[in-house]
Amino acid sequence: MTGLDALTAAHGVLYGGDWNPEQWTPDVWREDVALMCAAGVNLVSVGIFSWATLEPEPGRFETAWLDEVLDLLHGAGIAVDLATPTASPPPWLAHRHPETSAVDAQGVRMSVGSRNHFCPGSPVYRDHVAAVVRHLVDRYADHPAVAMWHVGNELGQTCWCDLCAERLRTWLRRRYGDVDALNAAWATAFWSQRYSCFDEIVPPRAAPYLHNPAAELDFRRFTSDQLRDVYRLQAAIIRERSDAPVTTNVMNFFPGVDQHAWADDVDVVADDCYTDPADASSPARAALAHDLVRGVRRGQPWLLMEQAAGAVNWRAHNVPKSTGAMVLDSLRAVAHGADGVCYFQWRASTGGAERFHSAMVPHAGPDTDLHRAVRAQGALLQRLRPVVGTRVDARVALVFDWPSWWAGELLPARPSMRLDVLGQLAAYHEPLWRAGIATDVVPPSADLDGYDLVIVPSLHAVTDADAANVARVPERGGVLLVGPFSAVADEHARVRRGRFPVPWADVLGASGEDWRPLEDEGVVVASDRYGDFVATTWSEHVRSDGAAVLATYADGDLAGRPALTRRTHGAGDDAGQAWYVTTVPPRDVLAAVVADCVAAAGVTAPLSDVPEGVEIARRGDVLFVLNRSRAKQTVRLPAAATDLLTGDAVADELLLPAEGAAALHLAPTERTR
Amino acid sequence: MTGLDALTAAHGVLYGGDWNPEQWTPDVWREDVALMCAAGVNLVSVGIFSWATLEPEPGRFETAWLDEVLDLLHGAGIAVDLATPTASPPPWLAHRHPETSAVDAQGVRMSVGSRNHFCPGSPVYRDHVAAVVRHLVDRYADHPAVAMWHVGNELGQTCWCDLCAERLRTWLRRRYGDVDALNAAWATAFWSQRYSCFDEIVPPRAAPYLHNPAAELDFRRFTSDQLRDVYRLQAAIIRERSDAPVTTNVMNFFPGVDQHAWADDVDVVADDCYTDPADASSPARAALAHDLVRGVRRGQPWLLMEQAAGAVNWRAHNVPKSTGAMVLDSLRAVAHGADGVCYFQWRASTGGAERFHSAMVPHAGPDTDLHRAVRAQGALLQRLRPVVGTRVDARVALVFDWPSWWAGELLPARPSMRLDVLGQLAAYHEPLWRAGIATDVVPPSADLDGYDLVIVPSLHAVTDADAANVARVPERGGVLLVGPFSAVADEHARVRRGRFPVPWADVLGASGEDWRPLEDEGVVVASDRYGDFVATTWSEHVRSDGAAVLATYADGDLAGRPALTRRTHGAGDDAGQAWYVTTVPPRDVLAAVVADCVAAAGVTAPLSDVPEGVEIARRGDVLFVLNRSRAKQTVRLPAAATDLLTGDAVADELLLPAEGAAALHLAPTERTR
Amino acid sequence: MTGLDALTAAHGVLYGGDWNPEQWTPDVWREDVALMCAAGVNLVSVGIFSWATLEPEPGRFETAWLDEVLDLLHGAGIAVDLATPTASPPPWLAHRHPETSAVDAQGVRMSVGSRNHFCPGSPVYRDHVAAVVRHLVDRYADHPAVAMWHVGNELGQTCWCDLCAERLRTWLRRRYGDVDALNAAWATAFWSQRYSCFDEIVPPRAAPYLHNPAAELDFRRFTSDQLRDVYRLQAAIIRERSDAPVTTNVMNFFPGVDQHAWADDVDVVADDCYTDPADASSPARAALAHDLVRGVRRGQPWLLMEQAAGAVNWRAHNVPKSTGAMVLDSLRAVAHGADGVCYFQWRASTGGAERFHSAMVPHAGPDTDLHRAVRAQGALLQRLRPVVGTRVDARVALVFDWPSWWAGELLPARPSMRLDVLGQLAAYHEPLWRAGIATDVVPPSADLDGYDLVIVPSLHAVTDADAANVARVPERGGVLLVGPFSAVADEHARVRRGRFPVPWADVLGASGEDWRPLEDEGVVVASDRYGDFVATTWSEHVRSDGAAVLATYADGDLAGRPALTRRTHGAGDDAGQAWYVTTVPPRDVLAAVVADCVAAAGVTAPLSDVPEGVEIARRGDVLFVLNRSRAKQTVRLPAAATDLLTGDAVADELLLPAEGAAALHLAPTERTR
Repeated sequence: MTGLDALTAAHGVLYGGDWNPEQWTPDVWREDVALMCAAGVNLVSVGIFSWATLEPEPGRFETAWLDEVLDLLHGAGIAVDLATPTASPPPWLAHRHPETSAVDAQGVRMSVGSRNHFCPGSPVYRDHVAAVVRHLVDRYADHPAVAMWHVGNELGQTCWCDLCAERLRTWLRRRYGDVDALNAAWATAFWSQRYSCFDEIVPPRAAPYLHNPAAELDFRRFTSDQLRDVYRLQAAIIRERSDAPVTTNVMNFFPGVDQHAWADDVDVVADDCYTDPADASSPARAALAHDLVRGVRRGQPWLLMEQAAGAVNWRAHNVPKSTGAMVLDSLRAVAHGADGVCYFQWRASTGGAERFHSAMVPHAGPDTDLHRAVRAQGALLQRLRPVVGTRVDARVALVFDWPSWWAGELLPARPSMRLDVLGQLAAYHEPLWRAGIATDVVPPSADLDGYDLVIVPSLHAVTDADAANVARVPERGGVLLVGPFSAVADEHARVRRGRFPVPWADVLGASGEDWRPLEDEGVVVASDRYGDFVATTWSEHVRSDGAAVLATYADGDLAGRPALTRRTHGAGDDAGQAWYVTTVPPRDVLAAVVADCVAAAGVTAPLSDVPEGVEIARRGDVLFVLNRSRAKQTVRLPAAATDLLTGDAVADELLLPAEGAAALHLAPTERTR
Repeated sequence: MTGLDALTAAHGVLYGGDWNPEQWTPDVWREDVALMCAAGVNLVSVGIFSWATLEPEPGRFETAWLDEVLDLLHGAGIAVDLATPTASPPPWLAHRHPETSAVDAQGVRMSVGSRNHFCPGSPVYRDHVAAVVRHLVDRYADHPAVAMWHVGNELGQTCWCDLCAERLRTWLRRRYGDVDALNAAWATAFWSQRYSCFDEIVPPRAAPYLHNPAAELDFRRFTSDQLRDVYRLQAAIIRERSDAPVTTNVMNFFPGVDQHAWADDVDVVADDCYTDPADASSPARAALAHDLVRGVRRGQPWLLMEQAAGAVNWRAHNVPKSTGAMVLDSLRAVAHGADGVCYFQWRASTGGAERFHSAMVPHAGPDTDLHRAVRAQGALLQRLRPVVGTRVDARVALVFDWPSWWAGELLPARPSMRLDVLGQLAAYHEPLWRAGIATDVVPPSADLDGYDLVIVPSLHAVTDADAANVARVPERGGVLLVGPFSAVADEHARVRRGRFPVPWADVLGASGEDWRPLEDEGVVVASDRYGDFVATTWSEHVRSDGAAVLATYADGDLAGRPALTRRTHGAGDDAGQAWYVTTVPPRDVLAAVVADCVAAAGVTAPLSDVPEGVEIARRGDVLFVLNRSRAKQTVRLPAAATDLLTGDAVADELLLPAEGAAALHLAPTERTR
Repeated sequence: MTGLDALTAAHGVLYGGDWNPEQWTPDVWREDVALMCAAGVNLVSVGIFSWATLEPEPGRFETAWLDEVLDLLHGAGIAVDLATPTASPPPWLAHRHPETSAVDAQGVRMSVGSRNHFCPGSPVYRDHVAAVVRHLVDRYADHPAVAMWHVGNELGQTCWCDLCAERLRTWLRRRYGDVDALNAAWATAFWSQRYSCFDEIVPPRAAPYLHNPAAELDFRRFTSDQLRDVYRLQAAIIRERSDAPVTTNVMNFFPGVDQHAWADDVDVVADDCYTDPADASSPARAALAHDLVRGVRRGQPWLLMEQAAGAVNWRAHNVPKSTGAMVLDSLRAVAHGADGVCYFQWRASTGGAERFHSAMVPHAGPDTDLHRAVRAQGALLQRLRPVVGTRVDARVALVFDWPSWWAGELLPARPSMRLDVLGQLAAYHEPLWRAGIATDVVPPSADLDGYDLVIVPSLHAVTDADAANVARVPERGGVLLVGPFSAVADEHARVRRGRFPVPWADVLGASGEDWRPLEDEGVVVASDRYGDFVATTWSEHVRSDGAAVLATYADGDLAGRPALTRRTHGAGDDAGQAWYVTTVPPRDVLAAVVADCVAAAGVTAPLSDVPEGVEIARRGDVLFVLNRSRAKQTVRLPAAATDLLTGDAVADELLLPAEGAAALHLAPTERTR
């Protein structure tokens, strides 16, 4: 059995947080469990940073405290997500085996005293990981409280040490077979980098100038794969003895882990998502992150493993959430497919580097506004049981790929550092999010047949096969929207020769010969359809090879050349379309372009008119309406519905208080599509 | 005998600077001494960076030049502050013993060719220090010119090497006894940092993420203590043979040395204070620094050991002082308790890294405006003999503590990096300085009974005992003013559990549950007493538990909650008050709050009306009036006085030219309090 | 035979670029050579980064490919600039001999995988360099295609390793003879830095604070000399067998190489010059760079070895050139004395770190606007054969010196980091460039007798001999214009004692005693001649000792003191003048001052009235007129001429289209001077 089914069947929407009993005395444990029950908590993650407590000396395990903790939780009916404590080895490991600590690109070995200092390639580290996980699994696999396994924490280490260098070479040997294949893929003829054998290869350590981009790209692939090895080592030991689902918490758009390559290794996608109350774009970015992680395992319900109840502590200035925003963040996750919302952490630590991170029980204790809101939220979430297990039905796909991101944004010496992959992704996602149109973020290798509209905001590097997969969209009658600087390179970051985007020039009916980053003032673009506008950052020297020209550069070196094109494939109802945006239009123009593509694809939004500050998202038969504004809002509905959060019937007008929300259960016949 | 008494008895106000004869030929020495005499110089610091000259090879000492220098000075009646040359060991030491050079947190060993590269924990360095100091003391302890000893220079090294790691462990063993006590104090249960023995502990070297805050705090304590050991080693050798006072030059708010912990080790506090002519806040900051160093040894007269006569060279753009500002800087120091003002340095170097630092004799020689001003200042200072040895009588205390500063400003991952301890200290000090109200900066463990008003702008971490010491102020009828984010943590940076500020919630009659850094636009605060205002940076979710609410948040999440409270203790003339400011008010509002506290404490200013740009400060019976502005100013006086600087009688109105000053000797009956 | 004579005699203006056939298959070679012929390419640089291809394993050379390449080029009549491939050794070298890789100031050894990672001091590296160069020379010295040799590429490595430390000590022993001389030159009495023997000296590695400036200065000298050794080693091997000119490509104002010290080592100065289309000051800076490199070998024609045809890839945002700007950049170089213009690179790479650098053949192939412009430019350049070998006849010299630049701009702890040598140089050069007045940038040791006006914008450090050389200018009847903070130091960065500028106080008739960086708002300067203006950044406390005062500080500390002076030497037609500017005037005021000096020197501009956006430059009998603006322009000419670019006769008015240009061949009698 995989996924969250068993857990949610028993508990409804999951609710809880990281709990670190090793920081507290047993009397606090008992107070905590009572408070959890009062708050409706039904899932806690235990033991994430407990290695030094569990194994205070090599081979000597102390588990009595954990026995008691698990029994306590089980007695209270709270499920346990039991962590392998491998994110931070105890100081004794580095003391006895210095090579178990990671080394940075300058050759500096990481010290103990922080966290996550381990070298993921160290055999000694891996041996100790295996031993502690085996001990934990042997002891607790059959404990009735244990409902899920949590491997490590935010796996993300990059290490440049000699041990990792050796593993890198092994990985490269496996990938390329012989060194000539590597030399070709890495284009080592440039700058006299040809390797005569694999032994000469080292990780991209400190160098006088730019590194080989293909080498950097493969080092990122290797690093993600090596972290997956560390995960797999632990998951395998768990699965020998336990049927409970195994997961690890990821960090959505974190560059260090290619989640698409890990999809089959986790039974549940568990994500850490920290919105920033001081950043107005944060809700849209959170929704994008949710659409990403939901897409990793093809729409399967996921788990919001970590978020903050109030403020975080790691920004320079940490504005806290209001209690209203806390609830909206949770409901947004559920609306976008989460079956549970958890927090870092249950009780605020008094010491350590995160003592100023908010928690479900603050330093001032449970008799506080924050904790009262936590308790009220628990009650609210229990009313959302009808959404558990349901799917978000998306007809729009946004294409995103880790290696392409690495190649397109994280390598230096590109035409412009101002054109970034994530920024483009967010720009194309935002109008969809504002309209409440469900969108899956998927890799370019995904089965795209289920989508009426496929948007490729910025896919810098793409394999031939993936390029062909995307190109089929308009050919089969779908709508394809391609952003600038796309399909530029192959999977080794080698620029494709010919008129760009080489693999899509035909399907777009347009092709280019020069990327032209713009001076700061931008360039005027003329368009009958969208009105004249000023485009910024980027332009491309393109010609139409059959596509309709919807906008034209009006001044500058490209005056008279196409800025935006659309080729129609086929005719009539089955006609497909291929749109090509060669610049960075202003937000409203891009929104109009996306809206045109949405309409062309026959996709409709759940509501036709959404007030500013109100956010909608549909999941299954439930339409979530979230009022982020500090004013009350009225939302017109197409039909009557029932608000799951209150149990009230709602006629054609929904009134929401400031920071209020509704989860409208639509009668099946009233579905908006 | 300690302190400056013998020196000032002989010379009056001390005046002089660092003199580095090893950079010059004997003919320049003789010119210099003649110029010193003409300028009224009576104290020079000699030999600070002379180790390589004194001991050109290990164990071979060359002192003939220094014999001659001391004789020359003595012959001219100039006292010598003889330095141990230990700040910068000669290159031969690092060449023969590489481990005598410090190592940074990345493991990089410091090179020779600069200064202060030594490792303070190296036994070999310490042995060589002992040898050179012993040689110097043996030779010169009885030399009649030697009136004071100057140990090293600006002691401030932090070293992360293995030798220092070993000393750190010894220091920790002594502090904590057993490792479990350390584990508890450092909260090592967080992030699996539990140490199984002291041997596993290393300094906070390069790590992948945040360090344990308690470990960082103790490393700062250890570093300050280790530097004190280097000082003590030398002071002890000196004191075996000499009765002259021993000092070292500190750098007021320098984080590396906890001066309060060194107070009993120095006979005189000697401070280096460099104002910045391009920074309008610099005079206030200098006055604050003076109030700090005077407080270190409980008000005893101190020595301004280094300042600049014109420009410094180490800022990115070094605007020089006017000659008027040069004099005002000196008079400010005397007004705030200094019995001497010296400079870095007497004669400008032609080579080396500080060749562009101004000096009392510039490169262009003595026939220059700058040197003429230096000479005129010498004459002026001689007229201030009546202030020598007198005390600044302060009834207001400002509480400041190095470890609390470290915990509250220098550790990362706090609620906001924008709320800084020194900034808060300066904000609460400034209105007192503007009014000319004498203020001592004291540690929280100080005897506070002598103060009518005690201000705690930002005391992040505090021991239980110190917290109780502060809490007694309103209980005994004094006025206590507490700023935001105070008494948050204990001495290990562990957040105190409960409603904050936990140890003062009762005495303040108010308590809080959430620190809430503000969005950039701030928040409106409504107050009948102070008018409505916009507070910025910070707010706290607080309730009154009996205190009067003097201002209330008017919008945002905290609308309606107290922003400023005052609890009255007792009644009638003996009533104490406890004020609590939970935010960062604008400057004028904070000035009004401080003025109310001053009035409540029964403290009065020396003058009731001070023009903008004029600065006053009272020391003993002398009221200093400094006109920093470039316009002449008129100051109304309560009574007639005599201006020590001119000898003139002044009636009820004092006229000062641009950048002019007066030192008014008040008749005892005319004292303003 | 040296220089470009043989090459240009055969080919006219040289045209081509770097070609890296090792990145391509032989079919691409043949396409490339055909395209080169069509574009008028007559010179290509081959093999710059080919070491790993040439010598895939130690001692095993593969040259068949290069044989074919050279034969192909020779068959097409294209001359070859054959490179020694020593800029980037193959990975096998670092793998077998880690000490052949450079180490930075923090002790980090550079990794392979980038380029130019070699340690220039490593004997093993040098042995391998000698071997590969010898092999190349033996094989190709007699190949008829080889017309020039290109040693390495952009030599610029700085290395702090122990091998280089040993070489540094040897270099210092040779420079100073005994260590006391070094101690005196380095002023090591400051900060106890006295060395007891050379063995104690290390390069300026990571240190706790500022390094000794003289040590830094000598390290820069040593580094430049050591790179010259690497060059000389290769040039010597080449010259044993070949008479073709030897060069290496420099980077004009690159601090790492003192070109004046290399002048006699190169047969041709070959420069890499990359304008920035997004920076309006870029054309003026390029002209300044051209005037610099032309001056290195006393006006001999030089070669623009590298420029970009479109965009570069190493800025954060790389705005491309228009095709018009591409041509103007080439013509500017020729107008300023270049006999050839080449590009990096011929064909755009698909892989490697510079895959997004533009090329003469872009990724999209030859059927592109960019390549068509490259071809058209080839035809244009062939029409400029009459300028080949001719000289730029400059009567104005701008004095610049690498060691003085190092001392005055690159050492820290100066009075102001805002006053920079290159900025001052550019400020004084710009009005000359705008007027089309030919200017040579020369070292202070140059023979200045040929110049009527000598400008010294910012010569911080100067030897006595060079100072005297400059001082003779007004004495022999020339005009000397000196900028602020000049002649401050000697060649060891030691400040000269006395009234500044010490060696020129007499010739200027003015002297100063204090450098006074200004507050941000600047200072008002009053002048009858130039009108009142606001000067910024810098002021000096100066008095006139006989000079006329042309402008006076009107407020601030220096009110009433001279800001600008002029001393006249002699009388009548032979009178010389010495001007002294003590501040940073606004651009228009500085232009007026320079214009006055130009007039005083009897220098006239080629045209009296040049429209904004039009740039003129005269070389021999040809006046280049370049219209950088995006509008057409009319330029009035003093007399009829022939436009070499079109062959058309031009009467008294020249009409230029947007980004158009003319090369007017003046009848000898019509010369403007």
